[in-house]
Amino acid sequence: MLNKFCRFALFFIFSLVLFSSIGWAQLMKGPTLSADNRVTFQIHAPDASYVKVINLSDSAALGAPEYQMTKNSGGDWSVTTESCRPGLHYYEFDINGARVSDPAAPLYFGWGKWTSCLEVPDANLDFYLPKDVPHGEVRLFWYVAKTTQTFRKCLVYTPPNYDADTTVRYPVLYLQHGAGESELGWTMQGKANFILDNLIAEDKARPMIIVMDNGYAARPGAENPQRPRGDDNLFSDLVTKDLIPMIDNQFRTIADREHRAIAGLSMGAGQALRIGLGHPELFASVAGFSGGIRRANIESSFDGIFRDAEKFNSTFKLFFFGYGTLERGFESMQAFSDELRAHGINHVWSEPVGSHEWQVWRVHLYECAQHLFQ
Amino acid sequence: MLNKFCRFALFFIFSLVLFSSIGWAQLMKGPTLSADNRVTFQIHAPDASYVKVINLSDSAALGAPEYQMTKNSGGDWSVTTESCRPGLHYYEFDINGARVSDPAAPLYFGWGKWTSCLEVPDANLDFYLPKDVPHGEVRLFWYVAKTTQTFRKCLVYTPPNYDADTTVRYPVLYLQHGAGESELGWTMQGKANFILDNLIAEDKARPMIIVMDNGYAARPGAENPQRPRGDDNLFSDLVTKDLIPMIDNQFRTIADREHRAIAGLSMGAGQALRIGLGHPELFASVAGFSGGIRRANIESSFDGIFRDAEKFNSTFKLFFFGYGTLERGFESMQAFSDELRAHGINHVWSEPVGSHEWQVWRVHLYECAQHLFQ
Repeated sequence: MLNKFCRFALFFIFSLVLFSSIGWAQLMKGPTLSADNRVTFQIHAPDASYVKVINLSDSAALGAPEYQMTKNSGGDWSVTTESCRPGLHYYEFDINGARVSDPAAPLYFGWGKWTSCLEVPDANLDFYLPKDVPHGEVRLFWYVAKTTQTFRKCLVYTPPNYDADTTVRYPVLYLQHGAGESELGWTMQGKANFILDNLIAEDKARPMIIVMDNGYAARPGAENPQRPRGDDNLFSDLVTKDLIPMIDNQFRTIADREHRAIAGLSMGAGQALRIGLGHPELFASVAGFSGGIRRANIESSFDGIFRDAEKFNSTFKLFFFGYGTLERGFESMQAFSDELRAHGINHVWSEPVGSHEWQVWRVHLYECAQHLFQ
Repeated sequence: MLNKFCRFALFFIFSLVLFSSIGWAQLMKGPTLSADNRVTFQIHAPDASYVKVINLSDSAALGAPEYQMTKNSGGDWSVTTESCRPGLHYYEFDINGARVSDPAAPLYFGWGKWTSCLEVPDANLDFYLPKDVPHGEVRLFWYVAKTTQTFRKCLVYTPPNYDADTTVRYPVLYLQHGAGESELGWTMQGKANFILDNLIAEDKARPMIIVMDNGYAARPGAENPQRPRGDDNLFSDLVTKDLIPMIDNQFRTIADREHRAIAGLSMGAGQALRIGLGHPELFASVAGFSGGIRRANIESSFDGIFRDAEKFNSTFKLFFFGYGTLERGFESMQAFSDELRAHGINHVWSEPVGSHEWQVWRVHLYECAQHLFQ
C-alpha cells in the first residue's frame, strides 16, 4: 500500500522533512543550499550596520567561524559560505551585537535556547532519514518526579506495532542529550526514532523502547536546574528512583538489567557512564558518545571498574564508547580504547567522521543500537 | 503517592512548566513579570541604534502595539510594559529593522516561524495548567499521506490509562490550529492535553482521543504548502481519506460518526466547519473557534445547511461556535448565534473574554470538550 508512494516520500525527504516545521517559514528567505554544499544565508535588517553569521560549531562545519553579510539596496543582508560539512549545524546571527536566531530557519533547542540549525544532507548516509518503513511513535510523557519534586516531561519512543500486539515486551534504552539541549534533542536533532525505525525494518536492531528525559535536574527548592557535575548524584537519583520504576510501570518493558541500557552524548555521556557503570544491578549495557571519560586511566577511571577485566566482562553485556574523528581528544580516546583492549576489557569503539556534532552522534546511535540487547 | 507533591507541583507550574524549555535559557535574562502583570523585556545588543518590542497581538495584550527599549552602558536594552492581559502573547524584537525572536524566551511555532511567547498567568483560570491528576500522552505519529504524497507528522493525545486497559475504545476529536501555526500548536500553546487531563479527572469530559494534524497541505509536486482556501478541498481530502482511516486503524477509536468530532481555531475553524458540516456521514459534532463563518446567513452559509432546522438538529449532535469578546466581528457573530437560536438551530455559543488569542481558544476547548460525546 505504502510502496507506491516511496518515490514521492524520498523526493520530499530532503526538501520537507529535515526542514520540518511546515508553514509560512518555508515561504520566507531561509538558507538555501547549492549542489556543492555552499549555503546562502539571508535576513532583512534595513537599518543594521553589520550582520554576521556565527557558526556555533568548529570552523569546518560551515567553512569558517563566521561570515560578514552584505546588504543590498532593499535592506536584505546575505552571504554565501564555503562548502559545508554534511550534518546538522547550529548557527546564529549577530545583528549589531545582538545574538539571535534566524527567523526563516528551523530551530532546535540547543545552546540553552531555541537555536537555528542548518541540515546539510550527506550523500553517503541515509540511515537517519525517514523512509517508507513502519514507524514507531514518540510520546510526550508527563510525570511528577519525587527526586526533584517537579513536574517533568520525557519523550518515549515506542517501536512500530507497539500497540498492535500488546503481549510483546521490549528492552529499554535510556538516552541522554548534551549540555544546553533538552529532552527533545534526540528526536528533533538526532532523528533517533527514524534511525531505529530503519534498523528495525532491516532487522539490524532489536525493537526497543527509548526513553529520552531532560538531563537537567535541580534539588527541591533550587531556583534553576544546575548543570550536573561529577559529584552531583541528583540526576542519577532521578533516573534510578523515579524514571526507571515509572517506565517499567507504564510501558511494556522487560524489567531486568539484561534488557536495560543507558547511553548519552557529551554531558549525557558523562551521565550515562556514571549512572550505568555505577549501577550494574540496573544496567547491563552502557554507552558514551563523545564524552564522559576524563583523565582516562584503567586504574582509576570510574573507581577502578576497569581493573578487573574478567569481572567487568562478566558484568556488562555491552560497553560502547566513541568520538568523532575531528573532535579534540579523539586520539587520546582512541588510545584508551586500544589500552582497554590490550587489558582485555570487551567494548565497542566507534569513530565516525566528524566533530562534536549531531552527525557523529547519529552514527554512534546507529552503531550502538545494532549491538544492544543481542 | 503523588498527592504529597501537589504543593511542589503547583509551585512549579507557573515558574517552570509554562516556560517549559528547561535548560540554559532560564539562566538568561528572559522576560520577567511583576505582580501587576507588567513585563520587563531585555536583550543584549551593544551596537544597535534602536531595539523595539513588537506586540504581535492587539494593543491590549501587552498594553501597546510596540515599545521602544532603552540601552544601558553595558549594551543591554530593556523596557517595562504597561499591565498585560493574562494569556499567551506572541511578540518579537525589532533590532535595527530585523524582526527576530527573543533569544531568552520560550518559542512556539506561530506566524509561520518559531516566535517568542509571553505567558501571563491568569489569576482566575487554572483549567489549562498541569495538575496532580493522571496525565494522557501526546504522541508524535508519522505517516505517508496519499492525498499529498508526502511524509507527514500529526500529534495524537491519548487519554490517561489508554495503555492500561486495552479493551476500551474512545471517541475522537480532530482539532486544528490557526494560520501560521503547526500541528504542535494545540499542545505547546493551547495546552489541550492538560485541559483534557483536568476535565477527565473531574469527570467533566468523556475520555477521548484528540488528533492534531498540520492544516497545510500541498498538491503533489507543488513546491510549498499553500494556505487552504474555501474552494480548496485538499485538506478536506487529507482528513477524510488519509487521516480518519489511519487513525481508526491505528488507535482504539469508536469508528462511527456519533463518536467523531472536528474543531479548529481561526483558519482551522474554517476547515473544521467546512469539513464537518460538509461530511455529516463522518462527523456528528462540529466546532469553530474564532473563525470559519463569513457573511453569516441562514439561507446561504454552508450551502444553506441552516435552512432546515429540524434536519440540522437531527443530523448534528453538537454544533459549537464562539468568538472572544474583544475580537473584531464578535458582535455580528453573537447576533448570528441569536438568529440561529430564533430559527431553531441547536447550538452552543461561547464568548470568552479576550481577543484573537490562545487564551480564548483554551476556553473554547474547555467548554466544547464538556459537550462532546455526551
